[in-house]
Amino acid sequence: MDMLEIITRKKLGMELTGEEIRYFVEGAAKRSIPDYQLAALLMAIRLNGMTDRETVSLTLAMRDSGDVADLSSIPGLKVDKHSTGGVGDTTTLVLAPLAAACGATVAKMSGRGLGHTGGTLDKMESIPGMRIDLSEEDFIRQVKEIGVAVVGQTASLAPADKTLYALRDVTATVDSLPLIVSSIMSKKLASGVDGIVLDVKTGSGAILPTAEQSIELAEAMVRVGTLAGKPTAAIVSGMSQPLGTHVGNALEVKEAIDLLSGRTEGDLLDVSLTLGGYLLLLAGKAETAEEGKEKMRQALISGKGLQKLKEMIRAQGGDPAVCDDVSLLPQAPVIREITCGRSGYVSAMNTSELGWAAQGMGAGRKELDDVIDPSVGFVLKVRIGDRTEKDTPLCTLYARTAEDAERAEERIRAAVEWSSKPCGRAKLYYALVTADGVRRLEDPE
Amino acid sequence: MDMLEIITRKKLGMELTGEEIRYFVEGAAKRSIPDYQLAALLMAIRLNGMTDRETVSLTLAMRDSGDVADLSSIPGLKVDKHSTGGVGDTTTLVLAPLAAACGATVAKMSGRGLGHTGGTLDKMESIPGMRIDLSEEDFIRQVKEIGVAVVGQTASLAPADKTLYALRDVTATVDSLPLIVSSIMSKKLASGVDGIVLDVKTGSGAILPTAEQSIELAEAMVRVGTLAGKPTAAIVSGMSQPLGTHVGNALEVKEAIDLLSGRTEGDLLDVSLTLGGYLLLLAGKAETAEEGKEKMRQALISGKGLQKLKEMIRAQGGDPAVCDDVSLLPQAPVIREITCGRSGYVSAMNTSELGWAAQGMGAGRKELDDVIDPSVGFVLKVRIGDRTEKDTPLCTLYARTAEDAERAEERIRAAVEWSSKPCGRAKLYYALVTADGVRRLEDPE
Repeated sequence: MDMLEIITRKKLGMELTGEEIRYFVEGAAKRSIPDYQLAALLMAIRLNGMTDRETVSLTLAMRDSGDVADLSSIPGLKVDKHSTGGVGDTTTLVLAPLAAACGATVAKMSGRGLGHTGGTLDKMESIPGMRIDLSEEDFIRQVKEIGVAVVGQTASLAPADKTLYALRDVTATVDSLPLIVSSIMSKKLASGVDGIVLDVKTGSGAILPTAEQSIELAEAMVRVGTLAGKPTAAIVSGMSQPLGTHVGNALEVKEAIDLLSGRTEGDLLDVSLTLGGYLLLLAGKAETAEEGKEKMRQALISGKGLQKLKEMIRAQGGDPAVCDDVSLLPQAPVIREITCGRSGYVSAMNTSELGWAAQGMGAGRKELDDVIDPSVGFVLKVRIGDRTEKDTPLCTLYARTAEDAERAEERIRAAVEWSSKPCGRAKLYYALVTADGVRRLEDPE
Repeated sequence: MDMLEIITRKKLGMELTGEEIRYFVEGAAKRSIPDYQLAALLMAIRLNGMTDRETVSLTLAMRDSGDVADLSSIPGLKVDKHSTGGVGDTTTLVLAPLAAACGATVAKMSGRGLGHTGGTLDKMESIPGMRIDLSEEDFIRQVKEIGVAVVGQTASLAPADKTLYALRDVTATVDSLPLIVSSIMSKKLASGVDGIVLDVKTGSGAILPTAEQSIELAEAMVRVGTLAGKPTAAIVSGMSQPLGTHVGNALEVKEAIDLLSGRTEGDLLDVSLTLGGYLLLLAGKAETAEEGKEKMRQALISGKGLQKLKEMIRAQGGDPAVCDDVSLLPQAPVIREITCGRSGYVSAMNTSELGWAAQGMGAGRKELDDVIDPSVGFVLKVRIGDRTEKDTPLCTLYARTAEDAERAEERIRAAVEWSSKPCGRAKLYYALVTADGVRRLEDPE
């Protein structure tokens, strides 16, 4: 097996064999192939693509590059949900406790935030005392006891992805469909769950901007999951504006608690309930996704979801009192109210730029070893389609310094577009993708 | 300036600015940009190409990444010839002395052989005592005194090419037109000559296999040379079989001496005289290339060319007696005569495989620090179109061991194809490319 020949074949647009794919994936995991050869291959894959067969081989080879978690000692069907990443996108903290309250077994391994999108682990760590680095034994024990755990994935899962992802990040090869599919699905398949629900984002804050590309990505991931023997369903949902209203780690935890307490609602809640409906379906706790969504809603109204979140926080060493008193979460020293400053209709948002604005305040990472500040971020007061006057609130900033607040204000203002004419709401649901195919979705009235 | 953005723009098929190109070329020369980012960019260039404007910017940036030799103290127009690399391709040792004998000033900097093609420096070093590592001062003094010098290029010329070429070699990005053009022309422009004649090979032993690709390469190089203010002409010539009959370092020196002595002739001589005609034209020593070629032929017949080769060998520390007694060149211990073993017509040759066969005997390098054996190689006794019987000689092998000879015999046999029906001679001349455009050429009768 010769790496130069593998690069040459992909450069010429040929289909790589399973053996060739396993060769370079193992080499990436063991660091025996030089980065420059992997980088050239990644760019050739980005530009010449991969067939379905290659994408499946790549995903399975990456799964097999490390340990595969054994969750068989946990009774029943274990399920997990994964988002391709968005801004103000806290669905996990809303749906995981609700689904567990409905009897599903939610065994979730999560990643860190990088770039303009937040990470569930970072949000959880803003809860005082909360631990996300559980051992596999403790993880399994907690899932058995309370039906839910959300932890960081260990370095021994899909180590090839660690090498390849780090390289993609610095070689402009993140936006490749087969590379996204294999990166996400190899880790999900290695995490040992029985069913997977995917939330594939589309729009200005998503990894792929157009709905067609995002649907294609969803189809590819569902195909790979299904072929690997794990029932997989995907929702393609809108990310042309932040999903929730809160952007920033402690702020997003606060929003999740507000939603589970029934104090607020909105797109974030609706998407969480929809995804949870599919989780319950795959977990065998509902006959249909619609029935599952209704069960999720009941668990919200009864307060069982908030109760389950408290149990999970306590089990992972955190202070569950934050669920009753959100002021126990980290507080930023500088708080600023910003008004729209113009009348008209909010017509569009550069959502990734909004994510970068929060990152610039200290809420996210540019590099993997950057330290984040859990308290900072902002709460957006407008949504696409809203009519505003000059003094309509635009957002509340939570910053470390007045200078940070000023910079963020400037970036947020530049990321929101106005129109003088009325414009429609942003589309929230695009498609449902299952093993049966693609079904286009219409937003509920 | 941000390398990630430069890679992204080329990945998306956009035209890079001169500033962006200078940024990554300087980074390559200074080694301040990681290899994996350069590798990803090279693959993006290989797959998405470059515009003429980008190719010119790249070539000039690479030229300016190091020293530019100053040959202004040498009177008159200095000329150089470069081949894109072939097998049995010793034109330099034939045409440089002949052109100098005709009054041209030939200031040639050459490279080492790598892969299946030989290098002029390696051939010259098979002459006992011959030095190719002259200082710029000694190089200039020799050109002034005898009108010709052929030396190795110093590491300070176009250092960006050293980084980029080494990376291209291990990332399957050698076969990119803008990268070939910039690599060759940056070094030629940095060598300080006034006019450049290019021999662009096409066929089974060439860097680009088809005539159309080779003509495109010739056009691009002529365009860049002309834009850089250096009159440049290119011949596109056939490499569907070795140009000369001798393959191997000392063997090729012997063939050059045989040709200059008038003992033999053939395609190698004709191409050398043709290229020399253009050298004389660019050097102002002939009114037309045809007149130049005729002058070259007169210098051959009069023996002045061989005399000039002796002068050059003596000036560079070598033993000029090899020109009168070729047995003073290194001799291989094992000599084997191989017959065709079949009757029919020679229809095709895998010329790069013939080059690799010589390399496998020790005549060439696989890696840059491999040591070569000047004595080994082979003399091919057939050409495409020849009718053979079973006992017609195929080649004479010059090997280190009987095992080496056997392996080489096998590879050479596998690289030659026979047909039962008569087939034509291989085409030798394809096109002449000058600033005026492309002129298709017919072979002389």
